[in-house]
This record gives sequence, structure tokens and C-alpha cells, in this order.
Amino acid sequence: MRIGAIEAGGTKFVCGIGDENGIVLDRVSFPTEQPEKTLGQVIAYFKDKQVEAIGVGTFGPIDIDPNSPTYGYVTTTPKPGWSNYPFLDTLKREFDVPFGWDTDVNAAAFGEATWGAAKGLDSVLYYTIGTGVGVGVYAEGKMVHGLVHPEGGHVLTRRHPDDAYEGFCPYHGDCFEGIAAGPAIERRWKVKGSELSEDHPAWRMEAFYIGQALANAILMISPKKIILGGGVMHQLQLFPLIREEVRSNLNGYVNAQAIVSGLDDYIVPPGLGDNAGLCGSIALGLQAWNQNR
Amino acid sequence: MRIGAIEAGGTKFVCGIGDENGIVLDRVSFPTEQPEKTLGQVIAYFKDKQVEAIGVGTFGPIDIDPNSPTYGYVTTTPKPGWSNYPFLDTLKREFDVPFGWDTDVNAAAFGEATWGAAKGLDSVLYYTIGTGVGVGVYAEGKMVHGLVHPEGGHVLTRRHPDDAYEGFCPYHGDCFEGIAAGPAIERRWKVKGSELSEDHPAWRMEAFYIGQALANAILMISPKKIILGGGVMHQLQLFPLIREEVRSNLNGYVNAQAIVSGLDDYIVPPGLGDNAGLCGSIALGLQAWNQNR
Repeated sequence: MRIGAIEAGGTKFVCGIGDENGIVLDRVSFPTEQPEKTLGQVIAYFKDKQVEAIGVGTFGPIDIDPNSPTYGYVTTTPKPGWSNYPFLDTLKREFDVPFGWDTDVNAAAFGEATWGAAKGLDSVLYYTIGTGVGVGVYAEGKMVHGLVHPEGGHVLTRRHPDDAYEGFCPYHGDCFEGIAAGPAIERRWKVKGSELSEDHPAWRMEAFYIGQALANAILMISPKKIILGGGVMHQLQLFPLIREEVRSNLNGYVNAQAIVSGLDDYIVPPGLGDNAGLCGSIALGLQAWNQNR
Repeated sequence: MRIGAIEAGGTKFVCGIGDENGIVLDRVSFPTEQPEKTLGQVIAYFKDKQVEAIGVGTFGPIDIDPNSPTYGYVTTTPKPGWSNYPFLDTLKREFDVPFGWDTDVNAAAFGEATWGAAKGLDSVLYYTIGTGVGVGVYAEGKMVHGLVHPEGGHVLTRRHPDDAYEGFCPYHGDCFEGIAAGPAIERRWKVKGSELSEDHPAWRMEAFYIGQALANAILMISPKKIILGGGVMHQLQLFPLIREEVRSNLNGYVNAQAIVSGLDDYIVPPGLGDNAGLCGSIALGLQAWNQNR
């Protein structure tokens, strides 16, 4: 099979072709600009690719309710031109194939559950921690949408007692994203995260926040696996520190083997690496194709 | 139809009979003592009731994984005699009918989604705030279990700046349950919550904690409705205060009509009143009967 995949990010679009096993056959990317220009490039890319379905995992917030008149729209975003833009309809006018449509992080969670670190599980949380924080929720074999879709990057965590940084989230100041995303690390320590040494205290503080957000998420949703992706998580020294914080926060309360003795295999990087998002969109496309048979 | 229902609580068991419309036809209760004694009473009650299925919504933690050898057990509990007790098997030996089995709060969420305040919705959170705090999660038309089951009463919230009370949770001290359940109100203010006046500052502090937990839950799970039950929530003056805290915490970020202008209808008491738990167990029994046809 040839399934089209679009991973629509705030700074770049990744487009590609995958097969029914999640193998990426082709992959291109271009910067996210005005929607007409960027979607024009997307359309030109897929024009002669003869795909049988297309999956779109996108930045949000988006309208994900098939019964809504604005289904397939990006809703409110500060990104110029994209607010209330009919993203999906623009593509549907060009390609007469089944479309999958979800948030980038739900797509990544679904891709990891289909072919990645959570393969075969019906329950996984996918966090991307980079310039922002996004959370995809896959529970009981379904991507969770609910009222809108999860926006778990904006939960409040307790503050680290040694942290004076006020946070950068325009809505919440020091919510999880506001104090733990990449820009917070850079503004707090006055240097890019990638330039901090592996044993810099920045990482223990970062793990304090991530571990607390994860412990709360475990208590609320009880996922079978948690996958941490995004630029900040390229700092692999964070993983053991985060597991330690999760263990300390839960303090023996959740008496499951995965938590008590299996955290190394419970909180993990994406099995699909930097293809998690694109593979997730392939999985969305494949699902749409199957539902349309 | 005649469906048996068991609402197994930490202090009392409520048993009853309901029909396929969630109408309670009969209802009894007895105190929770040693399992042999209490389940003996349950068995005696149902002996001549000719039920076609039985639903059990119970205190936990419980094993909810049908593939586990200890499925149907209460797992770890300080309650004498109940730790690792084969609750469900004890009943199955006596009654050859389909059994539904879930947490009391998942059952209540399911009951509310079937016949109550969330009727027809595929997504609802049910909180019980009483001697403890429990959270049932119903998402995309399914009760969420995952690794174990949600234990959302134990999330951490930020502390109210004027609150010096250290919390009573034996695992986490000042987690949500530890600072917001009934015993916390009583220990903080040195008087039972039910004896505090409606305009006592206790309620604003209580709403501070509940509103924060709810805002975080909205961001993580995006429920279509939140139902607040339990003894503390009999203080109806809490509802407007909680909605105000939720609005303030989200600060316009979740741009859905239910949040922006519909909070009065979004955060509500149980539609089934104090029958929410029992009706939830009826719904579990009915579901088991349907799955077994």
C-alpha cells in the first residue's frame, strides 16, 4: 500500500509516504508559512504519488468532531493565516481518498501503539516536550478527543522550591509548558538547553516538573506506557531522573509491576524515533482506509 | 428485566435490584465488615431475587484485567480481611449469571452516562468527594482502566497560600484527597464540614483545590461533562465557586462553548442523586448481560 502522511507542525510540515507496516518510503519537509503556500506545497507533493489514503496529524487546537460544521479546521492559533482555516477541506478538494485527521500528539500516540514502543497496547500517553508541550492520549484502544482534545501541556504542577523563573505561557504563565518546555529552560538558565552539560542542575529541575506531570497523569488515566518525545527529550539523561521523580511522587500507591519494578520499560523514548509523528499520520491514514472499505 | 446491583463502599454496601431503564426497584444496605460476613449478607439478599445479571461497582484498588489470574480481587487495601480477597469469585460461585465488575467511580460515571446528567454522552468524569476522593473516567464510550484503573484522587495540586494544613493521605500527605476530602476539612477547621456556615472561608479554599484538580483533568482528558458527587458535594454552594476556579485556571485556553459560557451545565451534581453508584452498578450488570447474549 501507499499511504500519504502529513505531520503538520508549528515550524515545519513533514510529508511522506508509508506502507501498511509503517515503513516510511519517502519523506520531505518544508517550513510552516501561510496556509495557502504551505498546503500548496503539500498538494504538489502528493499530486503524482498515487496514495490510497492520507493521514494528517497536526498542531492545534483543531476541530476533531465529525459532526461539527468546522470539522477539519484549525481553530484558534496565533499562527498567521491558520486561525479558523479549513485545513482538511483544502486537501479533500484535491484528493479523493479517505482522510484521517487528529492532533499531532494523538497521531504519535497511535503510531507508537501501532508500530512503536507501545506496539500492541490499547493504552499509551505520548508527550512531546520541545518548544511547547503536547500530550496525546490513547486509551482503551481509542484516541481520546472528548470535548475538544487533550491539551495536557497546560496543567499546573507544583513549583520547584528553588525555581524563580516565572514561566512563558501567555495563558497560564507557569503551567507545565510555561516552566518546562525548551524556551523555559533557555530563559531560566540564560543558555540553550542543548548547551547545558549533562550533569547541570537544570536537568534535575526539568525532571522534577516532568515527573510530577507524569505522576498526575498516571493517577488520572492509568496508561500502560508513557512515551516522551520532542527536542528536550533528546537529553537522554532526563529519563532516569524522571523515573525517580515519578516513583517518589507515587510513593508506592499505584501497586502495578510496571510502576513498582518496571519503570525503565514504562517511561521510554519513542520506538519510532523522530518518525513517531510521521508514522502516526501513516497509521491515521491506514485507519481511515480500513474504515472506508 | 431484573438486574442485581452492588455498590460496595468502604463503610457500607448498598445492594439493589434495577430494571433495564435504571429504575431502582429495591434497595438495602449493610455496613462493610469482614468479607465473609458482608458477602454472606449480599448472597442472602440476592438468593431469591431471580436477577438476570449482577453489576458490582466497588471500592478499590481492584484487579480489573480479565486476563489476570486475580481478576475480580480487591488487591491492596488496609480494610481488614479484604486485601487480596476474591470478591467476584465468591459471588460467581453462588449465582450463574453474567457479572459486571468495575470501580465504584467508573460505575457511577457509566451510570450517569447511561441514565443521568451525562445521558447520551460518550465522555464524562465522575468525582466522588467524601471521606476520600475517587475519580471515574468514561472516555470515547468506554470505562478507562489502562494499567490498573484511574486513582485521580491522589494527584498533586498547588497549595493554597493561606493553607497550613499538612494533609492526611498516608501515601502523599497533601495530595488532592489529603487536603480536600472531608477529613481534611474537619482537621483544618477543627469542626465538621457539615457544621460550617455556607459562607465560611473553608468553602472557597475547598473550591480552590477542587477547581484546580478539575482544570488539570479538563486539560488532560477533555471530558464532555464533569459530575461531582459524594458527601462534601452536598454543600451546593461549592458549585459556583468551583466553576469560577476552573474558569480562572483555564483562563480562556480551552475554547469550547461548554467551558467559555456553559460551565453551569458542564460541572454538575449527579443526575441520579445518591443513586448514582447503585444505578452505575445496574448499568454494569446490564452491559454484562448484553455482552453475554
